[in-house]
Amino acid sequence: MALCFFLLTDFGLSDPYVGQMKAAIRSRVPEAGFLDLSHGVRPHNIVQAAFFLASSWPYLPRGSTGLAVVDPGVGTSRSILLLRQDERSVLAPDNGLIGLLLDSRPGCRVWRMHSLPPEQAVSSTFHGRDVFAPLACQLAQGEDPSLLGEPMDPAICWNTPGSRPHLEGNRVQAGVVHVDRFGNCVLNIPESDWRDYFRGRRGVALLEPVSRSLAMVRSYSDIPADGVGLLPGSQGYLELAVDRASCAKRLGLRSGDRVVLRLT
Amino acid sequence: MALCFFLLTDFGLSDPYVGQMKAAIRSRVPEAGFLDLSHGVRPHNIVQAAFFLASSWPYLPRGSTGLAVVDPGVGTSRSILLLRQDERSVLAPDNGLIGLLLDSRPGCRVWRMHSLPPEQAVSSTFHGRDVFAPLACQLAQGEDPSLLGEPMDPAICWNTPGSRPHLEGNRVQAGVVHVDRFGNCVLNIPESDWRDYFRGRRGVALLEPVSRSLAMVRSYSDIPADGVGLLPGSQGYLELAVDRASCAKRLGLRSGDRVVLRLT
Amino acid sequence: MALCFFLLTDFGLSDPYVGQMKAAIRSRVPEAGFLDLSHGVRPHNIVQAAFFLASSWPYLPRGSTGLAVVDPGVGTSRSILLLRQDERSVLAPDNGLIGLLLDSRPGCRVWRMHSLPPEQAVSSTFHGRDVFAPLACQLAQGEDPSLLGEPMDPAICWNTPGSRPHLEGNRVQAGVVHVDRFGNCVLNIPESDWRDYFRGRRGVALLEPVSRSLAMVRSYSDIPADGVGLLPGSQGYLELAVDRASCAKRLGLRSGDRVVLRLT
Repeated sequence: MALCFFLLTDFGLSDPYVGQMKAAIRSRVPEAGFLDLSHGVRPHNIVQAAFFLASSWPYLPRGSTGLAVVDPGVGTSRSILLLRQDERSVLAPDNGLIGLLLDSRPGCRVWRMHSLPPEQAVSSTFHGRDVFAPLACQLAQGEDPSLLGEPMDPAICWNTPGSRPHLEGNRVQAGVVHVDRFGNCVLNIPESDWRDYFRGRRGVALLEPVSRSLAMVRSYSDIPADGVGLLPGSQGYLELAVDRASCAKRLGLRSGDRVVLRLT
Repeated sequence: MALCFFLLTDFGLSDPYVGQMKAAIRSRVPEAGFLDLSHGVRPHNIVQAAFFLASSWPYLPRGSTGLAVVDPGVGTSRSILLLRQDERSVLAPDNGLIGLLLDSRPGCRVWRMHSLPPEQAVSSTFHGRDVFAPLACQLAQGEDPSLLGEPMDPAICWNTPGSRPHLEGNRVQAGVVHVDRFGNCVLNIPESDWRDYFRGRRGVALLEPVSRSLAMVRSYSDIPADGVGLLPGSQGYLELAVDRASCAKRLGLRSGDRVVLRLT
Repeated sequence: MALCFFLLTDFGLSDPYVGQMKAAIRSRVPEAGFLDLSHGVRPHNIVQAAFFLASSWPYLPRGSTGLAVVDPGVGTSRSILLLRQDERSVLAPDNGLIGLLLDSRPGCRVWRMHSLPPEQAVSSTFHGRDVFAPLACQLAQGEDPSLLGEPMDPAICWNTPGSRPHLEGNRVQAGVVHVDRFGNCVLNIPESDWRDYFRGRRGVALLEPVSRSLAMVRSYSDIPADGVGLLPGSQGYLELAVDRASCAKRLGLRSGDRVVLRLT
């Protein structure tokens, strides 16, 4: 059966980088199949990539092997990590990219991959193609991780910065981790927290950066015309949204912005 | 042999939505192969999607199963339809997306898929991944459509709005259904109508939104320098084009614009 | 085993053109697998496409067949060429697209494909789908090139314009062949020439279009803060770059620009 490789990068699709990374894999594993999670992570945006990885994780085929390459530190001494959980594997730099996944899924195991011997000529600028791809092929073909690296305590991996909201009294300080193509603003509030934070509350309002009452709903079509909704989104996180228009435009929100909610 | 799934959405490729939809398919059908028709339909633009679907249809592999998800009504009571024609199948919301295909291909059969029982937990905002993908897998694996829905008279499906030109005397009121990357402006005039409308005419001019004589040609390279051509395009529809430059820019045309042609 | 087709076009990914080209292939070769090198070549930019093809070539799986379609002359009498080198094949228009590959790889063989008989109806505007795709399928399935075309002396193929730097004394006149997503500016100076030009030099400076001293480094992280580096990039060519920011923005460089370096 085809071996499945999933890919998550900030390479975009205009440059030939994703194609070369896949070519490097297929040259070693001719029966490789590919799943592109996204190559549209904004350059060097580790938080966005961490969110894409964590929210996509439960949908990935069991047995698949991923390459998550958002790697501003390429060419430095940063480590490459392997994470395994629930029969899925992913390689990523140790820069916070897997932090959100570690926080949200039980039973993650992590290995720190050995550095390549310096005499092994690889580019210093494109480890996705020259280091991650060959490693992923070995792992997908069943190589024991202990022969490629050494086990590592997940607690000492880099965290994803800004990945958790801050609750104080009836206020929630949260962050916009992603604005999607439709202008929905995904907050760093996991859906499971929604139920705890919001249980028994009468309502919720946005205080910052703009003041606005919010409709607590379950689908876009339930949001009143001209209103703004707060709903559990498809990615497992709360979203600010409006119906058939861009919430980001209406509220002037951008990825990375801080928002404050008040529960009543 | 690999089962082939084709995809047409307005999700874009920066968000992880297309990846999650494919992951949901591949988790159920490991040997799935994918054909991406486009994920660049403008958000909620049903006409553009209907045009992409109808014009791509004859090239799709026989036996393939498609997911066409441009679905502003997700979470409402809008139905999900299955269309079969000439050994190809596609699932789409009942919002006009398959209207142009129904108009242009003989022998289409349609089923209205059963709603999911409400106790079956799915997101209310991402039916592409949570409803279309599992349905497509069942159909691709040979499930009888009558077990998943009920036959429906194609005549009562939603039409694609604005999909037909209006002919009056020697004038044709048409619409720009798509402006492609090269600036070619695709009109809603099927190539087959070209022969009927234009048989025995001496010439054709654009009257609105700007006045301009047009060269009736068959290839871009036949268009005079600085001139504008009208030609039967590769998508089976007439196109306004210029040679090696953007017709949309030169004439100030955008997708959705109305144009008037005069035949002489 | 799956037959592997690689694709390089200026079609973009919003239009259904790439999907239709793949559909045309998969309709003929159901077990086809695809490698997308890039569809983001700027419209009609043959130099950029030639660079993507040459730099990606050594990573492509042996036995794979490519379609390189950046084809402003579609519908004219321009020829379609087949190039074979090191067990890889690619079809491309004779417009310079394979010129850089011919210059940089030994042992290339070229055939000029026969024109299609005019009675064989194909679109005059989309040869990628209607001519390249069927030809690629025949070749991938083992058809002898001599039955589809005739051998041709590579020396009479069109060159890639501006593909070589000009060395005069201690000055190098070079060109920016590509600005990537990160703002790295790839020059038309092959890495192998780097060693020859730069051997024993003390330093290098940019003279035009702006004056700036350059740090000769091997990785982005070695570039001093606020400095500009010159390094052998992952594509086999020298790059101007800055660390974690866009060199193109900092220096005001664009693809196609001429630069002058001075060696000291």
